[in-house]
Amino acid sequence: MGVAVAQGVGNARIDGRKNDELRPVTITPGYLAFAEGSALIEMGMTKVLCSATVDDRVPPFMRGEGKGWVTAEYAMLPRSSGSRIAREGLSGRPRGRTQEIQRLIGRCLRGVTDREALGERAILLDCDVIQADGGTRTAAITGAYVALYQALLGLTRNRLLPSIPLAHRVAAVSVGLVDGDLLLDLCYGEDSRAEVDFNIAMTDAGELVELQGATEGAPFPRKLVEEVLASAELGTAQLFEAQAQAIGSL
Amino acid sequence: MGVAVAQGVGNARIDGRKNDELRPVTITPGYLAFAEGSALIEMGMTKVLCSATVDDRVPPFMRGEGKGWVTAEYAMLPRSSGSRIAREGLSGRPRGRTQEIQRLIGRCLRGVTDREALGERAILLDCDVIQADGGTRTAAITGAYVALYQALLGLTRNRLLPSIPLAHRVAAVSVGLVDGDLLLDLCYGEDSRAEVDFNIAMTDAGELVELQGATEGAPFPRKLVEEVLASAELGTAQLFEAQAQAIGSL
Amino acid sequence: MGVAVAQGVGNARIDGRKNDELRPVTITPGYLAFAEGSALIEMGMTKVLCSATVDDRVPPFMRGEGKGWVTAEYAMLPRSSGSRIAREGLSGRPRGRTQEIQRLIGRCLRGVTDREALGERAILLDCDVIQADGGTRTAAITGAYVALYQALLGLTRNRLLPSIPLAHRVAAVSVGLVDGDLLLDLCYGEDSRAEVDFNIAMTDAGELVELQGATEGAPFPRKLVEEVLASAELGTAQLFEAQAQAIGSL
Amino acid sequence: MGVAVAQGVGNARIDGRKNDELRPVTITPGYLAFAEGSALIEMGMTKVLCSATVDDRVPPFMRGEGKGWVTAEYAMLPRSSGSRIAREGLSGRPRGRTQEIQRLIGRCLRGVTDREALGERAILLDCDVIQADGGTRTAAITGAYVALYQALLGLTRNRLLPSIPLAHRVAAVSVGLVDGDLLLDLCYGEDSRAEVDFNIAMTDAGELVELQGATEGAPFPRKLVEEVLASAELGTAQLFEAQAQAIGSL
Amino acid sequence: MGVAVAQGVGNARIDGRKNDELRPVTITPGYLAFAEGSALIEMGMTKVLCSATVDDRVPPFMRGEGKGWVTAEYAMLPRSSGSRIAREGLSGRPRGRTQEIQRLIGRCLRGVTDREALGERAILLDCDVIQADGGTRTAAITGAYVALYQALLGLTRNRLLPSIPLAHRVAAVSVGLVDGDLLLDLCYGEDSRAEVDFNIAMTDAGELVELQGATEGAPFPRKLVEEVLASAELGTAQLFEAQAQAIGSL
Amino acid sequence: MGVAVAQGVGNARIDGRKNDELRPVTITPGYLAFAEGSALIEMGMTKVLCSATVDDRVPPFMRGEGKGWVTAEYAMLPRSSGSRIAREGLSGRPRGRTQEIQRLIGRCLRGVTDREALGERAILLDCDVIQADGGTRTAAITGAYVALYQALLGLTRNRLLPSIPLAHRVAAVSVGLVDGDLLLDLCYGEDSRAEVDFNIAMTDAGELVELQGATEGAPFPRKLVEEVLASAELGTAQLFEAQAQAIGSL
Repeated sequence: MGVAVAQGVGNARIDGRKNDELRPVTITPGYLAFAEGSALIEMGMTKVLCSATVDDRVPPFMRGEGKGWVTAEYAMLPRSSGSRIAREGLSGRPRGRTQEIQRLIGRCLRGVTDREALGERAILLDCDVIQADGGTRTAAITGAYVALYQALLGLTRNRLLPSIPLAHRVAAVSVGLVDGDLLLDLCYGEDSRAEVDFNIAMTDAGELVELQGATEGAPFPRKLVEEVLASAELGTAQLFEAQAQAIGSL
Repeated sequence: MGVAVAQGVGNARIDGRKNDELRPVTITPGYLAFAEGSALIEMGMTKVLCSATVDDRVPPFMRGEGKGWVTAEYAMLPRSSGSRIAREGLSGRPRGRTQEIQRLIGRCLRGVTDREALGERAILLDCDVIQADGGTRTAAITGAYVALYQALLGLTRNRLLPSIPLAHRVAAVSVGLVDGDLLLDLCYGEDSRAEVDFNIAMTDAGELVELQGATEGAPFPRKLVEEVLASAELGTAQLFEAQAQAIGSL
Repeated sequence: MGVAVAQGVGNARIDGRKNDELRPVTITPGYLAFAEGSALIEMGMTKVLCSATVDDRVPPFMRGEGKGWVTAEYAMLPRSSGSRIAREGLSGRPRGRTQEIQRLIGRCLRGVTDREALGERAILLDCDVIQADGGTRTAAITGAYVALYQALLGLTRNRLLPSIPLAHRVAAVSVGLVDGDLLLDLCYGEDSRAEVDFNIAMTDAGELVELQGATEGAPFPRKLVEEVLASAELGTAQLFEAQAQAIGSL
Repeated sequence: MGVAVAQGVGNARIDGRKNDELRPVTITPGYLAFAEGSALIEMGMTKVLCSATVDDRVPPFMRGEGKGWVTAEYAMLPRSSGSRIAREGLSGRPRGRTQEIQRLIGRCLRGVTDREALGERAILLDCDVIQADGGTRTAAITGAYVALYQALLGLTRNRLLPSIPLAHRVAAVSVGLVDGDLLLDLCYGEDSRAEVDFNIAMTDAGELVELQGATEGAPFPRKLVEEVLASAELGTAQLFEAQAQAIGSL
Repeated sequence: MGVAVAQGVGNARIDGRKNDELRPVTITPGYLAFAEGSALIEMGMTKVLCSATVDDRVPPFMRGEGKGWVTAEYAMLPRSSGSRIAREGLSGRPRGRTQEIQRLIGRCLRGVTDREALGERAILLDCDVIQADGGTRTAAITGAYVALYQALLGLTRNRLLPSIPLAHRVAAVSVGLVDGDLLLDLCYGEDSRAEVDFNIAMTDAGELVELQGATEGAPFPRKLVEEVLASAELGTAQLFEAQAQAIGSL
Repeated sequence: MGVAVAQGVGNARIDGRKNDELRPVTITPGYLAFAEGSALIEMGMTKVLCSATVDDRVPPFMRGEGKGWVTAEYAMLPRSSGSRIAREGLSGRPRGRTQEIQRLIGRCLRGVTDREALGERAILLDCDVIQADGGTRTAAITGAYVALYQALLGLTRNRLLPSIPLAHRVAAVSVGLVDGDLLLDLCYGEDSRAEVDFNIAMTDAGELVELQGATEGAPFPRKLVEEVLASAELGTAQLFEAQAQAIGSL
């Protein structure tokens, strides 16, 4: 027997939002003076600083294929959270959660990049969480898109690329089942109580780049997936607007 | 513009299977003499050795809650593949892919375990890939279930538990889009060419425990998800039978 | 034969400052919502985010002595600089420079803390460089003081301490010899050309907490030290004002 | 005063074997489909999976000498034993015992390889213990020989070598002094009680490749060595037969 | 076909010694002022500094058994040899050779220690090679005995032990086959050309504690072992005298 | 309120020295037979073995600049002190103190080296503490100078350099404030009680190469710095004599 999905009127959310309402979103492009691309994204109290570094070589295993590469690293500052998180540098290996997240970010941004058009270049996206109140991995994807865009724009302005090799915009949100309610863009207080947790990355054409749904509690019915995708589509639509504004100012 | 999904008749598969046909499955329970639970699962040429270790303590951060814990480790033998994979022990840190997979396996098995009924015990599931021909993570989930079952059966036989604290069976399969065809249970030759790749873990009640879909190529349409879930339900149905036979012989 | 020290009129500085002029300083106290103490310090383009974490235990080797401990960690975000710096987490050990700096920060803040009055508590100061344009270690000391103050203020407000156990304020600046001119508060463009490089931490009573002078070029005369200390005293006087304003707003 | 060596009739062995009797031996050559050479060796309950990987480069320090190299890695699966052994990947460095064993295996196989005839190629032998009931290092040597042979046979079949550059066969057994009895091929229950423990690697010409004898208890008389060598010669004779059968089927 | 063993008159040795002649041996006991036991052993140009540290706890896995433990660590100073050896601290893990040697030293010293009489104490023997000209591991064993003796003598003088819990003296030498000659106590120039290399640790009662013989070249005949043991007995006899003198002066 | 500096007659020192008196100094050049340069320096009970290794390549980041490099490594033998210090090799990363010291040694020796005249060569100075009774880092600098000199002398004798590219001699001492007395060359018993601790490296022309002053206790007045430098000048004068004697015998 799986989780119960509430029908009808849900419970009030911690911060008074409606179930399918995002937190306030701000994206500050070009936040860092010395990086090829950068953006600070804030979703409520969650703040992630994203930067893009252009390397004119790809990793050894893909040289000579004429295609580019996009990858990501993710980390949390020690006091981004209520209790301090030890730096990974002191233990000598990234945590499993970190690795899982940075692989996710890399896949999502590659999913909208035209790697042939990019040519043999690598873009490394650094996503550093300044403050964490839930949804840091999805905020990182949304913000990294802007940092990536700025770096690629620079390559076109320097006439190293004829046009920006991005087929679509990509943005991501979380959707979770909390006390039987399906909530969009969970803050930490909601996330820690969620029975089912989804992260969805979509394009501005309404297609999917990545879909991850997991339970730490009970299994969930197949039909929940459709509802989750509908909520995610609403959420990402707003994020594409915030990205458009940020990019417009570059 | 996203991936194209073929309509109608698909292409022939590498090994002649139908699009929604599993590879031959064999599960040998109790493969290891010295482990509390174990199973060798073979899906075509893929072979994963799963074992379960019972620890009568949970990790420090969850002591005193009266609940159990289930976790997993995953590794590939160096020559499980066509080209040798360096042992992780020599670099000092598990690779990102490894961490992602072992976290997935852990979540799936926790998703069907009644942790209150298990009590303050930890079960560690080791999944070692003897031979890799695609689908090792999903085979690991399906095989680990049998190892876990055997270990818990031992606890009931030793009167440490009144009954086996598993709410459902769990099994997993991959489904992928290859040249526009949706294929069930990809072998390596198919997996390496897939445009979209899903891993789905379901219960024998037809509910979802984990759902992961990603593209390394182009974005994919929302409606693909429903087709993927239907194919996965067909595939896991057969796996539940193989599990039932394996468990029946213990 | 050592370095030549210019007499009389110096050369113009990169950014038009006078030789003994600081860059514009801003300290934003309480920058992080979830930390016991925090401050963002900006000196020109250099930005360091400092936080303070209170632990009610001291490290094992000093338990039972009735005294507190103050220590620091320091790191640079990968794109704080013009060329990307690899995360230390990936190599498994902090670099020598990092260790040298975090030990310096820790000593300076301990130097103004009344450890008996603090009692058996440890304060960990995290100094993360958001953007680096020279002088990050001295900015970290100056900013960490504010974060430490806020954390200790919290302890007094919670009646865990009767008063704030800080004997003095501490602030730090760099002074360097560049083309024979003694310059205060070097930016990166100056620092990279300096023949002699000093970092000085002083109290608001004009005493020294730490004094480090080194040459990578030629040896320097003893009398240079006095001139350096005079310049540092001018510089720290301004920093104490910025700290006072920041603290006043808490 | 050293150990006492029993004269005349010994005690019965745990599994009823005679003192100079091996456990049942099975070698399955070509166990792995994707490796250049492989063999599963079973000696009683001990099971070791050996594979051989051909690299057409030697390590940097021996390039240009025109000679080949043979080396080995050894590991135990976590549940090969009654109590779980942590993976070495998680601690960041191979244990001392592991290093000692893999160096032993490498030396033994090099001892029968004609390195000039092999040419500038490296063969890496992976020995993974599936199940451990004593004698895993000697089983690994005996099994690795078959994996090595298969890999070299492949090179001759592909006309990369004119003939197989192995001067002899090599096999290894343990001999130990347990309660004053000299026992051949110790199982774990015997090994853990042995006063003196030998591992001997011999060629099919009756010569020695490696001889290691150690006490964790009391010193032992020189004359014991001759008895040990006689027992080892009996044991390896049977192992050469098992190798011959395995190789004959390739 | 194995190695050829010369019959009759051998070749002259590099330094003019006879085949069964040791290099000049000096043992300076109490070389370090701050250690519980120490000795500098010099054999020709080989110099090893040994120290003994007494810990009044044994490792966790052997607590409560009422028995002591003796273990060793071994390292080479970077410029002990003609070409610099990188410090192991920089790579994060001891090399295989290092681990093999320190395990050997530990076994040899345990082999002559009455662990019941020692009681629940651990002695750690540090063997640091100041200069390496062959035979460092055997010199370390011989010197570590003196350091161990001094540390135990201190325990008896402090009335923590009624008598020194050493059943025998232990000393070790190398014996090698070089150009068909069996040579005692190889210097580096000989060792690097040896076809067969033995390390033997014996007691002053003429019994064996450890015997290791290996070939990197061709296999060797069984009868060589007896000759090796005879040579080793000659060599260790002289080492026992040097130990006796060193101990006599404490 | 800072530290109190005693006026007039001080307290007697632990070992009866006057406040500005060095411990007995001995430098044995060429202590190691196999190194390009070496020296054992003893200052009282403190003994540091220094060696110099010549590499005819500089690190990658400075190739092609036509300049040389001088760097250092520092380590303590485990029983150099009264309580054993774990080897850094076992933890996988050099300690902060170690890194701080080896960077200091490197800077000081670079400070007197004419890097253009040295050409594209790197000299690595290894400083291994045999026995530690305070002042190991300053002894290492003074001894490393002799090892460096010997290595460079060898290059001139081999006609690889026309002359020794050292502009000055460099030597270093500690000066500390203990119970209000300013003491030169602190032994461990003094160092552990010092309120303020300076390390000063000077040239034989009386100029400064490095100056480090820190308090773990209270801040100290600016005027103390002049007194410290005067004491250091007295101390280094004697060290330059010891260096001259050592070098004269090469």
